[in-house]
Amino acid sequence: MQKIIHYISIIEAALKGINQKKEPAKLYEPISYTLSLGGKRIRPALLLLANNLFGGKDEDAIDSALAIEVFHNFTLVHDDIMDDAPLRRGKPSVYSKWDTNVAILSGDVMLMQGIQFIAKKNHPHLHEVLGLFNTTAIAVCEGQQMDMDFETSSTVSIDDYLKMIALKTAVLLAASLKIGAILANSSIADAKHIYEFGKNLGIAFQLMDDVLDLYGDPTKVGKRVGGDVIANKKTYLLLKAQELATGKTQQDLDFCLTSKVIEDHKKVERVTAIFNTLKIKALAEEEMNLFYHAAISHLDSIDAPADKKQVFEDFAKSLMQREN
Amino acid sequence: MQKIIHYISIIEAALKGINQKKEPAKLYEPISYTLSLGGKRIRPALLLLANNLFGGKDEDAIDSALAIEVFHNFTLVHDDIMDDAPLRRGKPSVYSKWDTNVAILSGDVMLMQGIQFIAKKNHPHLHEVLGLFNTTAIAVCEGQQMDMDFETSSTVSIDDYLKMIALKTAVLLAASLKIGAILANSSIADAKHIYEFGKNLGIAFQLMDDVLDLYGDPTKVGKRVGGDVIANKKTYLLLKAQELATGKTQQDLDFCLTSKVIEDHKKVERVTAIFNTLKIKALAEEEMNLFYHAAISHLDSIDAPADKKQVFEDFAKSLMQREN
Repeated sequence: MQKIIHYISIIEAALKGINQKKEPAKLYEPISYTLSLGGKRIRPALLLLANNLFGGKDEDAIDSALAIEVFHNFTLVHDDIMDDAPLRRGKPSVYSKWDTNVAILSGDVMLMQGIQFIAKKNHPHLHEVLGLFNTTAIAVCEGQQMDMDFETSSTVSIDDYLKMIALKTAVLLAASLKIGAILANSSIADAKHIYEFGKNLGIAFQLMDDVLDLYGDPTKVGKRVGGDVIANKKTYLLLKAQELATGKTQQDLDFCLTSKVIEDHKKVERVTAIFNTLKIKALAEEEMNLFYHAAISHLDSIDAPADKKQVFEDFAKSLMQREN
Repeated sequence: MQKIIHYISIIEAALKGINQKKEPAKLYEPISYTLSLGGKRIRPALLLLANNLFGGKDEDAIDSALAIEVFHNFTLVHDDIMDDAPLRRGKPSVYSKWDTNVAILSGDVMLMQGIQFIAKKNHPHLHEVLGLFNTTAIAVCEGQQMDMDFETSSTVSIDDYLKMIALKTAVLLAASLKIGAILANSSIADAKHIYEFGKNLGIAFQLMDDVLDLYGDPTKVGKRVGGDVIANKKTYLLLKAQELATGKTQQDLDFCLTSKVIEDHKKVERVTAIFNTLKIKALAEEEMNLFYHAAISHLDSIDAPADKKQVFEDFAKSLMQREN
C-alpha cells in the first residue's frame, strides 16, 4: 500500500501545480475550489500504478492521471446539481456555493480540461487513449442517467442495477488502469485483463457500499446507518429483497416503502428484519465475492511478476475488508 | 454561394446519418431532438469549404465538421438553461421540453460526442486539431461566462464587449475554418489568415446583429425591434452611448435604463433618439467595417487562387448586406 500512497502524493502535488486562469473568476474559481476539496485520488493513483506495473514512466502517464481526476471531479460538480446535493466532502457543493449556472459552465470547462490533459502531448497512443477516455466518459453519463431513471421506475431488475453501477462507477476505475497499461506499451491481452480487474473490483466495491450502509458499524461508516433504506434507494439489497419477498413479507416490505407515517428508525428496523429473513446480506456478499474473485482472476492472468502484482491484490483486499 | 449551399446539404445529410443509441432514452432523445431542430450549419459548411480551398478531400474533413456542429449544439442546450430560454428555433428548448437535469447530462454527452467526432480517425493532424478544438471550446465557455457577468456589471467597456463576442461567437467560426485548412495541409501562414478572416468576420457579424436589433426592418428582422433596448442588454450600441453621453443626454439615458414605469415602446423611442443624437449607428457601422475589412485583408493574404477565394468574399459580403 506504500506504493499507492506514494502515487497519491504525486497526484496531490500535480493537482496543486495546476494553475487555473484568473478570469472570468466565476468560471475558474469553482474549478480550483473543487479540485482542492480533496478526495481519495484512487483512480489516478491506480493509473500510475498500472503504468508502473508494465514498466512505464510516471512522467509519461501523469497527464492522463490528471485527466481522470479532473474528469471525475467534473462529474461530481454536475451530479451535485442533478442530485440536489448541497454538500460535497463536507463543504458546499459548487451549485450551492455559487449557483446552478456557475456549476454547469465551470463543470463544462472541467470536462474540456480533462480532454486537454489527455491530449497534452502527442504520442503514438493518443488516438487509442482518447477513444477509451471518450467512450468511458459517455458510459459514466449513461450510468448517471440510469441512476436517475431508477428513482421513478418500479421495474428495476438486479441486472439493470449491476449495469448501472458498472457504468456509473466501475468503468472509470477500469479505464484508468487500462490507460496506464496502454501508455506503458502493455500487451493487448494484459490491457484487457487490468481493465476487467478494475471493472469487477469497482462493482464489488459498490455492492460493499450497499451492504455497509445498513450493516456497517455506525461508529465507522461515518454516516447514518440505513440512509439508503430511509430514502427507498434502489440498492442491491432492496432489489434482491423485492425479487425474493412473497406473501406477508412482500406486503410488509411494500408497507415500509410506501408508508408516509412510519418513523425512520422503525422503518430501518423493519426493513432490516425483512432483509434478515430473506438472508439478503449473505446474498449480497455472495454476489460481491463473485465480482471480487473475477477481478483477482483477471489480475492473476496478467503477464507480470507476482511481486509487482501483489500491491493490486493487497489493494483489492483492503477494499473488501474496509469498514466504511 | 452555390458551393456553400452544397456543403450545407452534405452536413444535413451527415447529421441525419448519426445514429444515437436508444437507451437511456432521456439521454439520447434530447440529442437527436436538438440536432434535428435545424440551424444554418454555417460553421461546418465553412470548415468543408476551407478544406476544399486548400485542396483537401471532403471525406477527410466531414467528421471534424460534424464535431463543430455537435459542439455548437451542445452550447445551445446548456446556454438555454443558463439564459432561461424556453424556445430554440421556435421549438421548446431541451430543458423546457424535458427538465434541467436532462439538459445538463445530454449536453455533457453532446460535448463528448463532439470530441469523439474530432478523434474518430487517427491522422497526423489529430493532436493539432484536437488542441485547437479544446482551446476554442474553453474560449466559448469563457465568452458565455463574460456575457452572464455583464448582466450585473456596471463597468463593461467596449473592449470587454468586443472580447466577449470574440470568445462567445467569433472564435468558433475561426477555428472551424482553420481546422478545415489544417486537415488540407495548408501552410501555417494560410491557416492563421483563414482563422483571422473568420474571427474578424464573426465580430463584424455580431456588431451587425446589434445594429439590426434596433435599426433593422421590422418586417425582415423577424423579432421585435429594440428587444435589446427593452432588456437593457449591453450591446455595442448601448455601451458606446454610455461612453459618449454627457449632461442631459446621460441623465436621459440613465432614466430610460432604470425607470420601472416607462413603457417599452416609449423606451425604445427615447433610447433611439439618444442614439441618433450621438450618431451611434454610424459609429457601430464604422467599427463593424473595421473588422470586416480586416477579415477581407486576411482573405487577400491567403496564398490560393482568387477564383477559389471568391466564395469566401461573397459570403462575407452577404453577411454584411443581410437585413435579418
